Amino acid sequence: MERGRPDLRGPGETFYDTDDAGSIGDSRWRAAGRRGRLAGRLLRSAAMLGFEVLKTDPTSRARRGRLTTPHGEIETPVFMPVGTRAAVKGITPDQVVATGTRIILGNTYHLQLRPGAELIEELGGLHRFMGWSGPMLTDSGGYQVFSLSELVEIDDDGVSFRSPVDGARMRLTPESATAIQNRLGADIIMCFDQCPPHPCEREAIEVAVDRSVRWAWRCKEAHGRPEEQWLFGINQGGVHADLRRMCAERLAEVDLPGCAIGGLSVGESHEEMMEVVEDLCPRLPADRPRYLMGVGMPRDIVAAVLRGVDMFDCVLPTRNGRNAYAFTATGPVRLRNHQYLRDEAPLEAGCDCMTCVGHSRAYLRHLFMTGEMLGPILVSIHNLRFYQRLTARLRDLIEAGCAARIMDEFPVAAAREDTDEESHS
Amino acid sequence: MERGRPDLRGPGETFYDTDDAGSIGDSRWRAAGRRGRLAGRLLRSAAMLGFEVLKTDPTSRARRGRLTTPHGEIETPVFMPVGTRAAVKGITPDQVVATGTRIILGNTYHLQLRPGAELIEELGGLHRFMGWSGPMLTDSGGYQVFSLSELVEIDDDGVSFRSPVDGARMRLTPESATAIQNRLGADIIMCFDQCPPHPCEREAIEVAVDRSVRWAWRCKEAHGRPEEQWLFGINQGGVHADLRRMCAERLAEVDLPGCAIGGLSVGESHEEMMEVVEDLCPRLPADRPRYLMGVGMPRDIVAAVLRGVDMFDCVLPTRNGRNAYAFTATGPVRLRNHQYLRDEAPLEAGCDCMTCVGHSRAYLRHLFMTGEMLGPILVSIHNLRFYQRLTARLRDLIEAGCAARIMDEFPVAAAREDTDEESHS
Repeated sequence: MERGRPDLRGPGETFYDTDDAGSIGDSRWRAAGRRGRLAGRLLRSAAMLGFEVLKTDPTSRARRGRLTTPHGEIETPVFMPVGTRAAVKGITPDQVVATGTRIILGNTYHLQLRPGAELIEELGGLHRFMGWSGPMLTDSGGYQVFSLSELVEIDDDGVSFRSPVDGARMRLTPESATAIQNRLGADIIMCFDQCPPHPCEREAIEVAVDRSVRWAWRCKEAHGRPEEQWLFGINQGGVHADLRRMCAERLAEVDLPGCAIGGLSVGESHEEMMEVVEDLCPRLPADRPRYLMGVGMPRDIVAAVLRGVDMFDCVLPTRNGRNAYAFTATGPVRLRNHQYLRDEAPLEAGCDCMTCVGHSRAYLRHLFMTGEMLGPILVSIHNLRFYQRLTARLRDLIEAGCAARIMDEFPVAAAREDTDEESHS
Repeated sequence: MERGRPDLRGPGETFYDTDDAGSIGDSRWRAAGRRGRLAGRLLRSAAMLGFEVLKTDPTSRARRGRLTTPHGEIETPVFMPVGTRAAVKGITPDQVVATGTRIILGNTYHLQLRPGAELIEELGGLHRFMGWSGPMLTDSGGYQVFSLSELVEIDDDGVSFRSPVDGARMRLTPESATAIQNRLGADIIMCFDQCPPHPCEREAIEVAVDRSVRWAWRCKEAHGRPEEQWLFGINQGGVHADLRRMCAERLAEVDLPGCAIGGLSVGESHEEMMEVVEDLCPRLPADRPRYLMGVGMPRDIVAAVLRGVDMFDCVLPTRNGRNAYAFTATGPVRLRNHQYLRDEAPLEAGCDCMTCVGHSRAYLRHLFMTGEMLGPILVSIHNLRFYQRLTARLRDLIEAGCAARIMDEFPVAAAREDTDEESHS
């Protein structure tokens, strides 16, 4: 079992193990093989994983924290870009780093479909496979099984489904999803859960909560690398406060080192989402990181940080970026609009990303109007940088004790204009 | 009229004018407007354009030279990646620079279709528009009109065609193609020519040669910025040595500062292409750069360098890269092949590009098999670096007086296995 262990390591101490993980710029593909990986494991200690709350905002429930992982430290609140199939879409690892990103997310479901966890393990694990040397989190596949597969059959033991790639019958259980994540080797792994759709009958959500808790016990039992990977539990319960609370109480007994809030950003309103977050956060262990899965739009992230959430992931910066939608502090810029035809300004005034520093809105619009793939790339880079600027500024303001001032600096976080339709497309 | 002027400038002297051209990393979008561009023009002198043959290989006709342009120097032989629509497909300007590229190519035809030369000029010219601060060459559109348009009607004055974008009737003449290139502002611009297809009746080629020469006179007459842009003539004549020679003699009377060989790489064999190059090069002015347009595969480039060609452009590194075809010194790697499933080696041993330094063949194959856009990006980067490594090594070997040794170091340059079908896809 892992817990927050802030006191076991000195300030500024890192456990960055490039020989084991592979790094950007590492050319020693053959030299650092299985032997290197085994050697790396021996170097590791239980102190490689930890979480520390450094400061709490006096005017809200916002927390400033630090996660320690075998691949480096993460300052929280943190936004994690999604690298579903071992790649942040269209962005090279050094470009991802340049956006200020410190941890990225991979997907058990997609990686097991192609190329398979055995192959990735054989090639040195997901870090080395994709050339990412920093911290990483893998999702368990629970959400994707239900949202992306066909012919899904669920029972108390696990889930059977048909592969969307080749139609083959596949099965995920708490044990297999955990074993896959052990093979992929991310620093943080997730319990296999059942994520009900929205809207959904209360009875079905009760079943999903019960199953997710019982599966969390099995994931913990099956977890083969607890010294190197933190296993987070996932809270379910839809928008029902009593079910969420009950789920939190039962997961507390499983005693996992991190608490995720799942089953949100599936179609409910911003207000419904925030009601859950506000009611639930004070009932989660204060010494463990809180991760709101799949969220979200800037105002969702800001509102959740102010309610005590530490971690986020979302496809929006890259997905919207590929569709000519740029995030800015004052609201979206939709680059296909004719108004940008001769606009020499950068996407966002004051942004320090390579897109804003080197290119005009007029140029970016041209790229989208002519179908040049550089358009999606450049706007994805800006959007990732925007999310990292937003969360970095949140961290600064929490340290300064005035987190709510983020609304002044990023008015988009207070706006209502970004509809659910955008955030869940 | 411009000529080679190697003696008017000292060694190492450059004329890099970032205020005028815009640069990668230039955030002064608004500060450097029209006033900045006019000021830049006043700073320029006729010495900004020049060509110098530094060394001739004793065992071949290969030349080692240096082109001077308002945006920097170019060491020749040089390979120019193609940025058809103001973007090298999928590659950011800093990534292009990192491959060793010093000059890129844009296309009058595509840029006039979208977004139009007027707009690009209004936004500061093509350099600033696309964030490329180095030297640039624009093609005149002659080749594209005939290869890409519908309902092409040609007469002695120019060419009318239907836009493939919106079906609108469009017209290019020597005067308008030159005016467009004056607006785009590339360092080297091309005469508007008539490029006959292959195969083609001799009579039709004779007409094309005659027309291209008469159009070259008109382009020269229409050229509005001869102090800042070098206008190159284009030799036509298909695979007929007598027509090529006659064209060269007549173009010598036009007295343009660079000599392009057009109308090749349109379906003829490697041997036919080289017969033309071998016969023609000694008949071109020795003090002016020679540019073999649209060529080609590594062995085409090497063979043409050994026969005295200085400049090349081709879409193959990026087009093939997008299709999982990687160039290496020993031949192509087709990344979709099953044999690379668990191949931990880099694309090419010893290559210093970011793709080879950071990623395995197995990972690149995974990206293509799952349709991740990062695959085309990473292989395009490698392929561009391969072409730059090849031409850089050619320059070194010419300086060392042993250009033909390139065949030992890059066996692919001597191989026959890369069929025309690949190079003209």
